[in-house]
Amino acid sequence: MCKGCGTLGYQDNIKEKIYDVIFESETPVGKAFDILLILTIIFNSALMIFESVESVRESYGFLITSLGWFFIFIFTIEYLLRVYVAHGRMSYIFSFFGIIDLLAILPAFFVTFLPQARLLVIFRIFRLLRLFSILKMGRYIEESSQLMRALKASRAKITVFLFTILFIIVIVGSMMYVIEGPENGFVSIPESMYWAIVTVSTVGYGDISPQTSVGKFVSGVLMIIGYSIIAVPTGIISNELAHTTKNLVGGKQCRHCNWQAGSLDDKFCPKCGKEINIET
Amino acid sequence: MCKGCGTLGYQDNIKEKIYDVIFESETPVGKAFDILLILTIIFNSALMIFESVESVRESYGFLITSLGWFFIFIFTIEYLLRVYVAHGRMSYIFSFFGIIDLLAILPAFFVTFLPQARLLVIFRIFRLLRLFSILKMGRYIEESSQLMRALKASRAKITVFLFTILFIIVIVGSMMYVIEGPENGFVSIPESMYWAIVTVSTVGYGDISPQTSVGKFVSGVLMIIGYSIIAVPTGIISNELAHTTKNLVGGKQCRHCNWQAGSLDDKFCPKCGKEINIET
Amino acid sequence: MCKGCGTLGYQDNIKEKIYDVIFESETPVGKAFDILLILTIIFNSALMIFESVESVRESYGFLITSLGWFFIFIFTIEYLLRVYVAHGRMSYIFSFFGIIDLLAILPAFFVTFLPQARLLVIFRIFRLLRLFSILKMGRYIEESSQLMRALKASRAKITVFLFTILFIIVIVGSMMYVIEGPENGFVSIPESMYWAIVTVSTVGYGDISPQTSVGKFVSGVLMIIGYSIIAVPTGIISNELAHTTKNLVGGKQCRHCNWQAGSLDDKFCPKCGKEINIET
Amino acid sequence: MCKGCGTLGYQDNIKEKIYDVIFESETPVGKAFDILLILTIIFNSALMIFESVESVRESYGFLITSLGWFFIFIFTIEYLLRVYVAHGRMSYIFSFFGIIDLLAILPAFFVTFLPQARLLVIFRIFRLLRLFSILKMGRYIEESSQLMRALKASRAKITVFLFTILFIIVIVGSMMYVIEGPENGFVSIPESMYWAIVTVSTVGYGDISPQTSVGKFVSGVLMIIGYSIIAVPTGIISNELAHTTKNLVGGKQCRHCNWQAGSLDDKFCPKCGKEINIET
Repeated sequence: MCKGCGTLGYQDNIKEKIYDVIFESETPVGKAFDILLILTIIFNSALMIFESVESVRESYGFLITSLGWFFIFIFTIEYLLRVYVAHGRMSYIFSFFGIIDLLAILPAFFVTFLPQARLLVIFRIFRLLRLFSILKMGRYIEESSQLMRALKASRAKITVFLFTILFIIVIVGSMMYVIEGPENGFVSIPESMYWAIVTVSTVGYGDISPQTSVGKFVSGVLMIIGYSIIAVPTGIISNELAHTTKNLVGGKQCRHCNWQAGSLDDKFCPKCGKEINIET
Repeated sequence: MCKGCGTLGYQDNIKEKIYDVIFESETPVGKAFDILLILTIIFNSALMIFESVESVRESYGFLITSLGWFFIFIFTIEYLLRVYVAHGRMSYIFSFFGIIDLLAILPAFFVTFLPQARLLVIFRIFRLLRLFSILKMGRYIEESSQLMRALKASRAKITVFLFTILFIIVIVGSMMYVIEGPENGFVSIPESMYWAIVTVSTVGYGDISPQTSVGKFVSGVLMIIGYSIIAVPTGIISNELAHTTKNLVGGKQCRHCNWQAGSLDDKFCPKCGKEINIET
Repeated sequence: MCKGCGTLGYQDNIKEKIYDVIFESETPVGKAFDILLILTIIFNSALMIFESVESVRESYGFLITSLGWFFIFIFTIEYLLRVYVAHGRMSYIFSFFGIIDLLAILPAFFVTFLPQARLLVIFRIFRLLRLFSILKMGRYIEESSQLMRALKASRAKITVFLFTILFIIVIVGSMMYVIEGPENGFVSIPESMYWAIVTVSTVGYGDISPQTSVGKFVSGVLMIIGYSIIAVPTGIISNELAHTTKNLVGGKQCRHCNWQAGSLDDKFCPKCGKEINIET
Repeated sequence: MCKGCGTLGYQDNIKEKIYDVIFESETPVGKAFDILLILTIIFNSALMIFESVESVRESYGFLITSLGWFFIFIFTIEYLLRVYVAHGRMSYIFSFFGIIDLLAILPAFFVTFLPQARLLVIFRIFRLLRLFSILKMGRYIEESSQLMRALKASRAKITVFLFTILFIIVIVGSMMYVIEGPENGFVSIPESMYWAIVTVSTVGYGDISPQTSVGKFVSGVLMIIGYSIIAVPTGIISNELAHTTKNLVGGKQCRHCNWQAGSLDDKFCPKCGKEINIET
């Protein structure tokens, strides 16, 4: 917090050290903390997943409850430390991860009083999102950022696609409500739209399915549409990925014949043999 | 209606002003009208969707009916105004949107007399199609036209694909009717064809499913076909999009024959041999 | 049959004329015959499809039976004529379409004696295959041959893919038979393999579904595999189509700078402005 | 085993000959052995598949049991011979195929004593994996290695994709457990995760399906995600295959640094600037 000043208070010194451990991952201790945190979060999530199984809860109830409170304890300490050492306390508290971190521990204390808070327990699993921010290292980050770039570049096209799908769902959903009616399971337009999503995405639960001839015909057309239309986003992403990959090395090219470098390591032009030394 | 003439009747003047507001979107008032219309249509559709839910109808019945008639009232005025100011009255009335606009309001008046008109109420939701014509602005239009061009370019290939699918459905549907028969749910060839669509599109409701060994074997083959054949339209679109995007390159084109440059480096037109030096 | 000889018997003359009408489609009469045949086949198929619907059969039973025999009569005459005028009678009779044509009419006569021949009635619908041979005209043929070429070029890759899928089905099917057992619907390995196909192709009828925890876990893995593996054939076809399209125009290139022509109409090289006049 | 030495023991001589037959496929006898082994494995697997069908077991019980023991006998001899002649006995026994070969025969002897060994019988079907090692010949190997290379090259991207899918499954699975609860079939988080896999992969058995409005809405979103996200791996593979195929171009590579030519026109190596003039 006071990087440039000559004298550093004892407390500030400790605070800064804790900050480096918790928020940074350059130091060995920071890295160790990150790995420990990942393991804790994963183990905590696994615990919650197994806790939900009745037979497990019956057999290992006490152990699971104890471990649960143990994790709450650890997460609470972690949260308090983060609030304590954060550069800009408020901006951490109201940041996305600040809220997630708080929501992961808060409901546990309320659950004792109101059992309806079961719904909030889920936020502890949302801590898994931290993995994404921690795992921002290694080679995977490059790959996922490449994917992200391709998705971003095709955002507008995908929006058009999703808008079209949504439109088809509303129209076909309304049509089927009128055609089949409540007597065949299409009790309302929202329900019909749910059916349309189930059908157009080719999931096909079969909990609602058309009974009349006209309904079956319309469904058939919807299925063929859903089945064919998937080709569109695939084509978009595929095309965009090809572009993204190309653009990654595309900046580098031969000054003499404009040959586009195949990779950033290329040093000589394969067309004319001249050296390539233009910066991207 | 009389842009060039010196004197403009008072009535014509108002008519022209209303026309600019309703049919055009260049003026601020025209833009405001468009946005208002979009909101009205969306709100009306949402109303109809919720109206179909029984519990909502029971709780807010009066409110919903009132709002429904309110929208009918607005849409009727809008329709009458459109007819009144339209350049070429008949061509508007019999245009696609003219019919949609009329169908959106007409059934409401009939529904009082014959309850069977429920089917026609759906046309009010079809007004959503207006969104497409209004939203023809911003950057999305470019993206969707790019998608449209790719789809159009691959029209013939997709027709061949759909024809093949249809053929498979007829043949396999007939086969399964013979193999399984009415006793296993394949009560007729149209029903079997419905099952074939459900299967080949990988929707798989499970309302009809093969019971005999031979039927299961044929189904298995059909599934593998359906599962693999989806690769074909995807490949087509993907390939076509790559082409379409390439053709867009910078809007650079030959001044003499409108040839679209394949890449920004192209210096000469391959059609007429003239030099290309038009900036984007 | 006697193209070169000076005198042509009266009978041979007629035979040759009928041949031109039935087997060729250059003459106007030949074209008319083809269109008539297409209509007859489509109408006959539609008739059979509707005949299978019980309610239709009950209402229009006599009409349908009469029309059915009418088509049998026409097809029989057509078949006899084809046999009579065919160049190389035996090679027609034992050709693919010769057999289809015979099977389309033969069962109808037997069905009177043994009702079990119902299975063979299906062959009348197989006559639809004739459409493919007749429709070999117009622009669609080019498109479908392009698709065919792409599929042929990727034949080996697709074989590897299908072999892998088959392998997964056998292994997972056997595993699930052991894990779930007959008590959970996996009554035999073939049945389990049918389930595996239903699952890996993402059809998912739900007529058989895993009940045990281990079974559900294995199914989950299989689903993710099935869901991801579809990317492989899509990638193959997509890639091959890109190649095929490119190769179509690829033969043509600039003699001076090796620029590859973008389309067969290109007459000038866009890189150096020289004329392109190399034959493919 | 003693290739270089002048005198070769009689026993060693035989051993070496058996080795060539069993482990190698250069000699005609070796090839014949491979084909025989393939046929034996396929026939054995087919036998096991049919044995699992109750009606077949009842009709041909004795024949199937006899044939089963016959194959066990053959596989046992083959295994013992392999152990006997293998170069490096232990490395064969503990190799992947060594273990598969042993597991294929061992359970058969135990099954007499403990019927619970039924689970292990499956390993006999795992012998099918041998086909992969034997079939490593012909043109298919090149194609599958091309596919393999594309999959390997996109490994990191696919890992990111699968990780994202897994993440979605955990989050949505937990959410649905809270939203729907045990009363609607979502009895535990693992069960909910199974449902999430069934849904996101668009399989959709329908054994578990959402009942509440909120649950249906979340499912709808999950379906659209699952339906669209498939575009990502497809795009990846498609793009990678295009790359891989391109890199294969003619096997032309730099003599000095093994750089693979990007196109047949490349004349200079972009890594070291040396001229490339090696023929394929």
